[in-house]
Amino acid sequence: MKIICSKEELSNGISIVQKAVSTKTTMPILEGILIDVGEQFKLTGNDLELGIECFVKADIREPGSIVINSRMFGEIIKKLPDSEVLIEVKENNNVIIECNNSHFELKGMPSEGYPSIPEIESDKTFAISQKEVRDMIRQTLFAVSLEENRPIFTGSLIECKNNELTIVSIDGFRMAIRKTIRENDTSEFSVVVPGKALNEIVKILQPVDEEITIYSSPNQILFDIGNCKIVSRLLEGEYLNYRSIIPKEYETRVRANTKEMLSSIERASLITLDEKKFPVKFNISDENIIISSNTEIGAVREEVRVEVNGENMTVGFNPRYFIEALRVIEDEEVDMFFTTNIGPCTIRPLEADKFAYMILPVKINNE
Amino acid sequence: MKIICSKEELSNGISIVQKAVSTKTTMPILEGILIDVGEQFKLTGNDLELGIECFVKADIREPGSIVINSRMFGEIIKKLPDSEVLIEVKENNNVIIECNNSHFELKGMPSEGYPSIPEIESDKTFAISQKEVRDMIRQTLFAVSLEENRPIFTGSLIECKNNELTIVSIDGFRMAIRKTIRENDTSEFSVVVPGKALNEIVKILQPVDEEITIYSSPNQILFDIGNCKIVSRLLEGEYLNYRSIIPKEYETRVRANTKEMLSSIERASLITLDEKKFPVKFNISDENIIISSNTEIGAVREEVRVEVNGENMTVGFNPRYFIEALRVIEDEEVDMFFTTNIGPCTIRPLEADKFAYMILPVKINNE
Repeated sequence: MKIICSKEELSNGISIVQKAVSTKTTMPILEGILIDVGEQFKLTGNDLELGIECFVKADIREPGSIVINSRMFGEIIKKLPDSEVLIEVKENNNVIIECNNSHFELKGMPSEGYPSIPEIESDKTFAISQKEVRDMIRQTLFAVSLEENRPIFTGSLIECKNNELTIVSIDGFRMAIRKTIRENDTSEFSVVVPGKALNEIVKILQPVDEEITIYSSPNQILFDIGNCKIVSRLLEGEYLNYRSIIPKEYETRVRANTKEMLSSIERASLITLDEKKFPVKFNISDENIIISSNTEIGAVREEVRVEVNGENMTVGFNPRYFIEALRVIEDEEVDMFFTTNIGPCTIRPLEADKFAYMILPVKINNE
Repeated sequence: MKIICSKEELSNGISIVQKAVSTKTTMPILEGILIDVGEQFKLTGNDLELGIECFVKADIREPGSIVINSRMFGEIIKKLPDSEVLIEVKENNNVIIECNNSHFELKGMPSEGYPSIPEIESDKTFAISQKEVRDMIRQTLFAVSLEENRPIFTGSLIECKNNELTIVSIDGFRMAIRKTIRENDTSEFSVVVPGKALNEIVKILQPVDEEITIYSSPNQILFDIGNCKIVSRLLEGEYLNYRSIIPKEYETRVRANTKEMLSSIERASLITLDEKKFPVKFNISDENIIISSNTEIGAVREEVRVEVNGENMTVGFNPRYFIEALRVIEDEEVDMFFTTNIGPCTIRPLEADKFAYMILPVKINNE
């Protein structure tokens, strides 16, 4: 195997496939990157949950393949001067890396033991802009459950149905829903993708308009981004019928400036060392919300001017749930729909239907 | 106590004095910042080794003093809007913080228990630009010893003598010396300042030409930076007579581009997981240095074109010692003076006498 490629393009490719390389594993080969040279020069990372292939432009001199330790390979390439890099495998599986006056020879591993990424052939497919799917994942991912007792909720539901693409995350106390219209797209599917995989995928996606293609099969989902293919296994099990739990009615609608609301809740949560024990209290009156908290450290009171429609109300929340939702909302203003002091609050954009965050309140002591 | 000041200036002041606040202590008052309002508004942090006072411009309404938890105070002020902040202490020692629509009330601690920073009256004093003393500390600090078995070497020697200011750090395997001429300055002293304190001081000093004044007393050193005074205790004991160990002669002089030399050693050290066990080898010939390393992971060979005066030579080094020295050198080229393969190498600027780094070699296996 022998190729010559640009240091920068190789370094980019490595940093992408590294997102699927195991750091803790009992199988040393999974700590490696598969380098495969046939008609193209391809890098692969695979931790058996997430697999990433990346094609790097190269001058191909001799086909072949090898597995090389991912961390070491990445660090060496990153530190090379911005120039052409030669990679060559010798008969003893040693890998030569040469660039200007630098010469490395590293022990490689034969590629035979490297697990292949499943091929996905599926007609359940659709195209979407990188930026849009990136935003959709980012705006829901924080609400996946981190607890393993209900494994299905450690992933996000990705649903393609009735010309809509929907991503849903839920952790038992809150739910994040993000939608987009898919016109002239008849493919239908519904899969649950592990949060860990989405967390890596969202780092690879760029905020650009170029389209990517998503393929769904019974056990895997594939994100095809041109030079790079990402395959994740799916979570098995029934997801919650999320539509049924969104409240249709409300008692009080509060329209607020997103950033003002966020800053005030962030400040009110500063004196809360234990957020489960010390919720923040929302006191909604005619023209404002008083956000307050009392803990062993002291007390805080924040006043936010808002537009209120409906009854005055006092209700307590885990501040983190509000903070995480408000942080990913780009709209200048939001509507918050409160039901009762034990019923969910829903945050929505002013008009469009693109997102909804539902947060369950926390019981507070009346003062 | 009652004052009004700008959020930004208060936040800057807090972040400076926080560098002297204990994070691990059995005395809760040392986790606090002393707020003292007399004719001026003063913040103090003090961990009994390092003490920092900072004056913040304020509209003083009522004198008084209080101690407030440093972390909490800092986080709250940082998150406030850019506006005027009111701080007021109530009779029960509660501290009120108000800014626009935010209102905090935190438990304070009476200031009586707070340890005072020693007053330093000394005629051993000199003035120097902030930038220069900052560079001098930064360019020597990395070579202080981290081992507690010879406590005196966990600090840097600051010596004022014969119209020269010199800072020296040494850890048994290497030494860093940085000098500057002090014309018309007759004060003489020689003190050893703990590396931990210098590490905080160097973060506070700015790369500006404004002068600061340094005062030395038998037990403390004071850096007076206008609005901010930093006092550190000194280390007791005899420092090494560093002058006697700088080699006067050499076998081979190598003149190299600093960055090229640094990058090559950095790359050569990448395959060295255990730097004590696997040194890098310098092979000096007529026109170049071959830097190489062989470890269980593989082999690397770097070639750097240099100007050589003297004998060819092969000598091994801990790469980190070279890397840390070359990283703080701003000169485009340096001279490296090699003695023997068991004698020290000295790195110097081409002409001036402002710095010298001495590094002891490591024994290498001959191949």
